[in-house]
Order: sequence, then C-alpha cells, then structure tokens
Amino acid sequence: MRRALLLAATPGVPVGPNPRVGCVLLGVDGDPVGEGFHRGAGTDHAEVAAIAAAGDRARGATAVVTLEPCHHTGRTGPCTAALQTAGVTRVVYAQADPNRAASGGAQALAAAGVDVVGGVLADEALDLNRVWTFAMERQRPFVTWKFATTLDGRSAATDGTSRWVSSPQSRHDTHRLRALSDTMLVGTNTVAVDDPLLTVRDDHDVALPHQPLRAVMGLRDLPADRRVFNGDAESLRLRTRDPHEALAELWQHERRHVFLEGGPTLAAAFVRAGLVDEVVAYLAPKLLGAGRNAVADLGVTTMVDALELEVDDVSVVGPDVRVRGRI
Amino acid sequence: MRRALLLAATPGVPVGPNPRVGCVLLGVDGDPVGEGFHRGAGTDHAEVAAIAAAGDRARGATAVVTLEPCHHTGRTGPCTAALQTAGVTRVVYAQADPNRAASGGAQALAAAGVDVVGGVLADEALDLNRVWTFAMERQRPFVTWKFATTLDGRSAATDGTSRWVSSPQSRHDTHRLRALSDTMLVGTNTVAVDDPLLTVRDDHDVALPHQPLRAVMGLRDLPADRRVFNGDAESLRLRTRDPHEALAELWQHERRHVFLEGGPTLAAAFVRAGLVDEVVAYLAPKLLGAGRNAVADLGVTTMVDALELEVDDVSVVGPDVRVRGRI
Ligand SMILES: NC(=O)c1ccc[n+]([C@@H]2O[C@H](COP(=O)([O-])OP(=O)(O)OC[C@H]3O[C@@H](n4cnc5c(N)ncnc54)[C@H](OP(=O)(O)O)[C@@H]3O)[C@@H](O)[C@H]2O)c1
Ligand SMILES: NC(=O)c1ccc[n+]([C@@H]2O[C@H](COP(=O)([O-])OP(=O)(O)OC[C@H]3O[C@@H](n4cnc5c(N)ncnc54)[C@H](OP(=O)(O)O)[C@@H]3O)[C@@H](O)[C@H]2O)c1
Repeated sequence: MRRALLLAATPGVPVGPNPRVGCVLLGVDGDPVGEGFHRGAGTDHAEVAAIAAAGDRARGATAVVTLEPCHHTGRTGPCTAALQTAGVTRVVYAQADPNRAASGGAQALAAAGVDVVGGVLADEALDLNRVWTFAMERQRPFVTWKFATTLDGRSAATDGTSRWVSSPQSRHDTHRLRALSDTMLVGTNTVAVDDPLLTVRDDHDVALPHQPLRAVMGLRDLPADRRVFNGDAESLRLRTRDPHEALAELWQHERRHVFLEGGPTLAAAFVRAGLVDEVVAYLAPKLLGAGRNAVADLGVTTMVDALELEVDDVSVVGPDVRVRGRI
Repeated sequence: MRRALLLAATPGVPVGPNPRVGCVLLGVDGDPVGEGFHRGAGTDHAEVAAIAAAGDRARGATAVVTLEPCHHTGRTGPCTAALQTAGVTRVVYAQADPNRAASGGAQALAAAGVDVVGGVLADEALDLNRVWTFAMERQRPFVTWKFATTLDGRSAATDGTSRWVSSPQSRHDTHRLRALSDTMLVGTNTVAVDDPLLTVRDDHDVALPHQPLRAVMGLRDLPADRRVFNGDAESLRLRTRDPHEALAELWQHERRHVFLEGGPTLAAAFVRAGLVDEVVAYLAPKLLGAGRNAVADLGVTTMVDALELEVDDVSVVGPDVRVRGRI
C-alpha cells in the first residue's frame, strides 16, 4: 500500500475533478506484476493502468489500491468490471469511495466472489485527497477564501490606495495556492474596479500551462474587454448572488476546489452562507489605523459568535505572516 | 569577557533603572582573582563587587567588564575611582556607556594612567541591555505597545463584547512580557471602563514579588477605588495628554521600559507622536467582520505612509499568533 500511495502522489498530475489514486498488482506468488496511477480526468484509472502493465500476470493477482475501486461508468468503464475481467481475485484498498455515484465497488466485487479488504492506511490515502473527499461528501466544491490585510485588518488606506498591502513574496505564494485549486472566484465589483487577470503565473510572471477556471459572480453586465475574459484561461460568468447556486453550477462543471479571492462583499456572502471551508490570510506587518476593512460584515454581532478558525499553519512569507485555518 | 557576559546575565536580577553588568578581575599572572555582577539599583556595581571579592589581589589586576566603567556619583560612587583605589592597572570593556551622565569613564581612567581597551564583544554586551541602551541614548523610556485583535483587526464585537479576544495562553504570555518592563501604561478610559488590576501574575494568577509601576495617563479624575490604585503595586497618575510629557515624567521616575496596553486612543496618540518603538500584537484566529477596530486612527491616510514593522518574531501562542516587531 505504501508503494501505491507513492504512485498516487506522483508529481505532475494536473489538478482536476478526479482523485489521485495509485495501484500495485501482486501476482500469485506475492511479487509485484504491474503498477499504475491515475493521470487525471479522461485517462485510465489506476487499476486499469496497473492491469495493462501486468498483462496476463494479473490473473489470480491481488490489487492493492489507494481508493475503493469505482463501480460506475463515466469517461471510462467501471474498475470493478476491469478487475474481474483481468482475473484479479483479491482487492485491498485504503480509502472508501466518498463519491456517491461511483461507490459500491467493494460490495459489487465481494458479491462477485472477489476477496475484498478495505481501510488499509486509509488516513494516509485521505490525506492525498482531502479537498476532493470533502467535495464528494458534500456534493459541492471545497471553498478556500484568501484575503490580504494589514495587522490591523485594513485592505486599503482612507484615500483608497491598496497597492502593496502584501509583499511580492505573498503574491507569489498566492499564485502557488491558486495553482492547487481548479477555480478562481471573484465578485463582479472586483472585476469592474481592479480588472484582474486571475491567471496563475510563476515567480517570473509566466503563465503556467494548466490554469484554473476564472469565475465571476454577480448579476451586472461587465464589459467584454475585462482581462478576466481574455483567452489566457477559461472564464465563466455565474449570474447569481446565491452562493449555494454558484457552487452548484461550479459542481456541474466538475469543480472541486474554489479559491475565493474576494472582494470582501462576495467573501462575506459565502461566510454568511456557511460556505467557506478554509481561510488563508496574508498579514502585512503594517498599521493603517483607518481605511477599508479587509473583512466585510459577516452578520456577527457578539464575540461568542465570531467565526473561529482552527489554525493549521502559520508561516512567514517574506515580510508577511500567512495564517491558514479551517472553519 | 565571555565569563563577564555570563555574570551580567545572571538570572534573578529585578528589572530596574540600571543595566546588567558583569566583571572579572584577572590578577598579575592572568588568573581570575575576583568576579561580580550588578544586582540592581542601589547595590554595588559589578566592578566594585569584583574588587571586594578579589581583596588585595586586585592590585595590578586587569578588570574585564561588560560596560565602560561609570564616572559618576549616583547611589554609589564612581567605578573609575574604585578601580584606581584598588590598584587596577588595565581595563578591558565591551560596550561604551550610552548614559550621558555616567560616561567619560574610559577617558578618565586613561588620563589617570590606566591602560584601557574598549569594544571587546560589544555587540553581545549591547544585546544584554538593548532597551536600557535605547533609553539612555534618547533619554526617555523605550515603549512597547501591546494589543490584541481578531484576524480582521477587531477588538470587540458590535454589541461591545470583547472578552476572550485572545486566549488564556496569550494572557499568560502578556504577563510574562509585562514582567520584563518597569512600567505599565494605560489611558484613563481603560481604567474607567475595564477597571484592570495591571499587576503581573504567574500562570496560577499569583502576583510576582517584583511589580512594574502602574501608570494611568489623562486629565480626568478617577474614583480612588479603581483597582489600579490598590496597594498591590505602585501607581502613578500622569495628568497630561502629551506623550512626550508623560515619558519625561516617567524618565524622572527612572523608568526605562514602558509597556503600553491601551486603550486604542492612548496608543494612537503615542504612535502619532512617534513614541512607539516596538509592537506586540496578539492575533486571535477569529473573524468578526464588524465591531470596534483594535487600532484607532493613526493619522495615516495613504498606504505608503502606513506604519511599517520590522518583524523580529512570529510565534504561535496557544491558539493565537503573536507578531513582534520594531518600528
Ligand atoms: N484585500 C484583498 O485580498 C482583496 C481581494 C479582492 C478584491 N479586493 C478589493 O475589493 C474591492 C472589491 O470588493 P467589493 O466587495 O466591492 O466587490 P466584490 O465582492 O468583488 O463584488 C461585489 C459584487 O458581487 C456581486 N455579488 C455576487 N454575489 C453577491 C452576494 N451574495 N452578495 C452581494 N453581492 C454579490 C454584486 O454585484 P452584482 O450587482 O453584479 O450582482 C456585488 O456588488 C476592490 O477594490 C478590490 O481591490 C481586495
Ligand atoms: N484590545 C486591547 O488590547 C485593549 C487594551 C486596552 C483597552 N482596550 C479597550 O479599549 C477601551 C478603552 O480605550 P479608549 O481608547 O477608549 O481609552 P484609553 O486610550 O484607555 O483612554 C483614553 C483617554 O486617555 C486620555 N488621554 C491621555 N492622553 C491622551 C491623548 N494624547 N489623546 C487622547 N486622549 C488621551 C483621555 O482622557 P482624559 O479626558 O482623562 O484626558 C482619553 O479619553 C476599553 O473598552 C478597553 O476594553 C483594549
């Protein structure tokens, strides 16, 4: 299973709607006869890749796989069928499939006489696919809200200047985190006011080959020449003010991880709807004492109702401090 | 000199107006014949303590001392005279004396025919007495401003609730930092509204034996039964609204390190006067989205004028994040 987990974590797989999965086939004498991992939506599932590698040696083999084999025809056929066809007689898996549509694999295999064991190193498998698992369980994308603020909670001075709230290092770090999501989300006003590009660029400002979807939420019309609608990456208008509706639409587009970059109005709407799962705050070691608040009204009026974060990580990013936590 | 620095740093010396100083006397054959350190205002200076320990063996000896010997009669006589009387023929010191009143020691000794070398491990000696050195150079106390805030810069919710902005761990940590200062400073309104005790207590809420002065700044009269005026520690009314005047008065009281705990109004006045030297911010991982701002108007209207901190330290304190920086 350790080998299967390593395979699942092979670097270079583009972020997409599917989980990361690895599989090792052990032949009748217990030696590995084939292995594989899932390279992203539309490509072979890990089991199918391992079967292809093993060829005839899959007959009578044990499949060790990091996720319960799927029992569902999507872009590819169900793995349960592929395993049986290949003659695999035993399946050991780590994480149970949280995907309602694809689950039932273990049961189907057992019913067909395959020896099935689940839950081996399940926590480590879950760690590989935390966001995907969360999304599958709730049938909506996981939402990370990022904001930048001074140490006293300001995002702009009284004259409206907001450039360099955070440092170049924090901006690079933000691009790194953007690249781990499949969707960037902003409100119409941010597009109207800031005209951001919302692509993911490396430290030399060069766009990465794989770009998240750029989603803009809100009812108003926006000029077509806004940079977010250029051809540098896919764009999507979400013509609603309802966060639930927006996430449902993104779910239809197979989005699992939304990186919400603001502005404050949209972010507050998501918080009030209970639809922010993770917060990433970049704190610049500056004090303004006045100006725009980085966080808009969340509907909280008393201290015990404050939105509490369970802090996962505090890092120094250049001159800034990054605090990351789950809600 | 390493030994002298270690002596200077001997734990247990109460915080006071004087620097920490250590001294080793090396006899004519180069062996140590006596050592000493300063135990706080009113007690022997390090050189005098070392001379007392060495007795007759001080004759012809070399004094290795972490601070330039004083040339000034205060609570005790000048060390320059004591060294000469004891027959010390050579003095090696680390840090030059930044104290205008007491300096001139090296020159006086040299003029009297003593062999004098300064600047040996001067940086390490300075590290021992950073706050004191700063105060002496500017002839005013060093000011540390502490505040607690949510991640979005709030110190209270809209209904006024402010309890538990920060955690018990952060409150204990604050008491630890209070104990390193010689003065706690608050505005009259904090005393009127919160009636704080402003003593330094250990983790079991027991008052420490040595307490900083509790200073209350502002013009209004306050009821005598406020807890800050009880007998648990010294108290001082600073009947002024001028931060310069307040620090001058504290300087008269031989105060070197003011721990400014608020409220926001008083702190902002010190910032605007350029009299905050260090900031300690406790950030609770909570979001309120509304309510009182932790930092009041600092007179800053545009981003480039923001008060910038050079961050010395970012620590996780219980659930909170502590950011410490100099201005
Ligand atoms: N500090 C940071 O990290 C950061 C990040 C991003 C932006 N910003 C700044 O924030 C400012 C823009 O923020 P903003 O808050 O004004 O705009 P915003 O949140 O980007 O957009 C607000 C607009 O979104 C639409 N909307 C969609 N769903 C909504 C809902 N549930 N509730 C309310 N409105 C909804 C509304 O427009 P319709 O009329 O179109 O529906 C609304 O006017 C810019 O100045 C930008 O510089 C700061
Ligand atoms: N989050 C935190 O870390 C923290 C810390 C402490 C307090 N607090 C909260 O802050 C609140 C009190 O803060 P506050 O800002 O109202 O009061 P404050 O700063 O404690 O006191 C303000 C008063 O100080 C006097 N003062 C002295 N020098 C002044 C100057 N240069 N400029 C203006 N006033 C000066 C004035 O009163 P006179 O008329 O007497 O001159 C003024 O009304 C309380 O609710 C407390 O809970 C929070």
